[in-house]
Amino acid sequence: MRELPVIAIDAMGGDLGPRAIVPAVEDFLRSGEQSARVLLVGRREDLEPLLDGHAGGESDRLQIVDATQVVSMDEPAADALRKKKDSSMRVAINLVRDGQAHACICAGNTGALMATARYVLKTLPGIDRPAIISAIPAKGGHTHMLDLGANAHCTPQQLAQFAVMGTVVASDVHGLAKPRVGLLNIGTEEIKGNETIRLAGQLLGQSELNYVGFVEGYDIMSGRVDVVVTDGFTGNIALKTMEGVARMLFDTAREEVSANWLNRLGAVAAAPLFRSIRRRVDPRRYNGASLVGLNGIVIKSHGGADSFAFGNAIRTALVEVRKGVPTQIGDLLKRQTILEQAV
Amino acid sequence: MRELPVIAIDAMGGDLGPRAIVPAVEDFLRSGEQSARVLLVGRREDLEPLLDGHAGGESDRLQIVDATQVVSMDEPAADALRKKKDSSMRVAINLVRDGQAHACICAGNTGALMATARYVLKTLPGIDRPAIISAIPAKGGHTHMLDLGANAHCTPQQLAQFAVMGTVVASDVHGLAKPRVGLLNIGTEEIKGNETIRLAGQLLGQSELNYVGFVEGYDIMSGRVDVVVTDGFTGNIALKTMEGVARMLFDTAREEVSANWLNRLGAVAAAPLFRSIRRRVDPRRYNGASLVGLNGIVIKSHGGADSFAFGNAIRTALVEVRKGVPTQIGDLLKRQTILEQAV
Repeated sequence: MRELPVIAIDAMGGDLGPRAIVPAVEDFLRSGEQSARVLLVGRREDLEPLLDGHAGGESDRLQIVDATQVVSMDEPAADALRKKKDSSMRVAINLVRDGQAHACICAGNTGALMATARYVLKTLPGIDRPAIISAIPAKGGHTHMLDLGANAHCTPQQLAQFAVMGTVVASDVHGLAKPRVGLLNIGTEEIKGNETIRLAGQLLGQSELNYVGFVEGYDIMSGRVDVVVTDGFTGNIALKTMEGVARMLFDTAREEVSANWLNRLGAVAAAPLFRSIRRRVDPRRYNGASLVGLNGIVIKSHGGADSFAFGNAIRTALVEVRKGVPTQIGDLLKRQTILEQAV
Repeated sequence: MRELPVIAIDAMGGDLGPRAIVPAVEDFLRSGEQSARVLLVGRREDLEPLLDGHAGGESDRLQIVDATQVVSMDEPAADALRKKKDSSMRVAINLVRDGQAHACICAGNTGALMATARYVLKTLPGIDRPAIISAIPAKGGHTHMLDLGANAHCTPQQLAQFAVMGTVVASDVHGLAKPRVGLLNIGTEEIKGNETIRLAGQLLGQSELNYVGFVEGYDIMSGRVDVVVTDGFTGNIALKTMEGVARMLFDTAREEVSANWLNRLGAVAAAPLFRSIRRRVDPRRYNGASLVGLNGIVIKSHGGADSFAFGNAIRTALVEVRKGVPTQIGDLLKRQTILEQAV
């Protein structure tokens, strides 16, 4: 029997901590769709009662790994790194470094996770900075965007490295043959934007990647490209702007539904329609951002993820394990001699 | 009888040119809701047939002002400035400079419009760079965001100046007593973002404006603030991302409606509901961005604006004329001694 992939899960992170994560992990394991072993990292006294209540305790598929500390959601990354050496987050990442887990998942403090993962796992050769990448719903499927907030400032070389990482995630994880890569800018003409983006565009134009040029804000969702590359400042604001628009539209819809009986009646009749629309753009389907560029697989789940959403983060981790994403990134980067020289 | 406000309209700009703009102007004048005189700027041979066909030619409310050239939508701003001295865009702005019009409206090339307006009208004392501001639909009403694309790079002082301009537009034009101003950032903690934003936050904290701190992407639409300040790179990408999300959601809805008979039936029953949702977030209601920080009122209409949308751009121009926005900006800026020192 081949060895099962092992996923270390920080059970203490996220908005609800173990009360949300333990049942989500059990749901995933019970579904039986994919085989994996889970190491649940956290305070044994918090985790054991939850496990006993639901699944009858530890098993060969689910074990607790002790960690005495917890990184809070608003703790500065530097403090987490210095003072929380036995945090559930740190121990989960250590398990990846030590080869005891193939990937780790954390729903906690993103800044602390990035700093800790970078410190413990180190970046791949040729990669300056890791980045956060996630799938985004788009016309005809989805796009992959990075960086979503790890690096407020980026050099042209770093943006080009992000393009390599995005290409690997889109092709290996999502099965696209030659992912089209676009650089996010404020216009598609070559003279637009700033020096950094223009230089990054030149580097990418000379690479072997399928670089299609500058793209604009609406192309994140237009289906024109498969990978959208941007710095972490712009990427984070674009991502949260998307969340804001979706939230406002759904709030507006809810208000209008209860505005009068005609609208209420319409909403009842259109319930199946609303459900099918919602299913297609459900952010829970896209849960599980990856920290790429590291010597190891680290997945960030949304802090408020429910069982369905958290299951998708586990599925993302398993695909990255199966495909060996860090190795693929290293290999593809080595082939881009133009970027190697630049680094 | 008091003098009617005079609005110069570049009749040649936008995706459809005079064929869209002439009827839109006539619709507005016929509606009679607000009194104004319109100077229609462009090639007389293109405009006269359209006017004769619809409204029976020129009148005391609607006159043609000759301009022999047209700035195309993709023309570099520098070329428009140097080679198109008799363009409809340039002549419309000249009319404002010469006091023959109180404001001008253009649906054409934004880059060329900004460059020409800045060259012809000059910036207000104490303002380094003009910015583009627009109302954005938000929970409970709308937000005003600037800069939407005029300045890819901004200094802390320029961002603080944008906050002054945004405060005037939100308070004078939209009647808010003390508009809440937020700086767009990737987190609300004071250590987040980059040096420019942190310094801008410090300047604003010492100003007399109602500065509430950093806000994130979803706050553009959350109703937490009335004015969102950001540089033109981030603002433009956020704006186009919003357009992209809305377009994708409506496309998804359309596809799902035709997916099966149950959804089609639901859509028919929910038609009044859909209409009321759409009305509240209709981008045409928000047409008419302002170029602020100039010695004069310049309004940018969307290139694809229909008659309803273009009418809103005219209404925006008339409100700015009535309130004297450029003067108000100059006055409020003078009171911010902290910013004056910084400029």
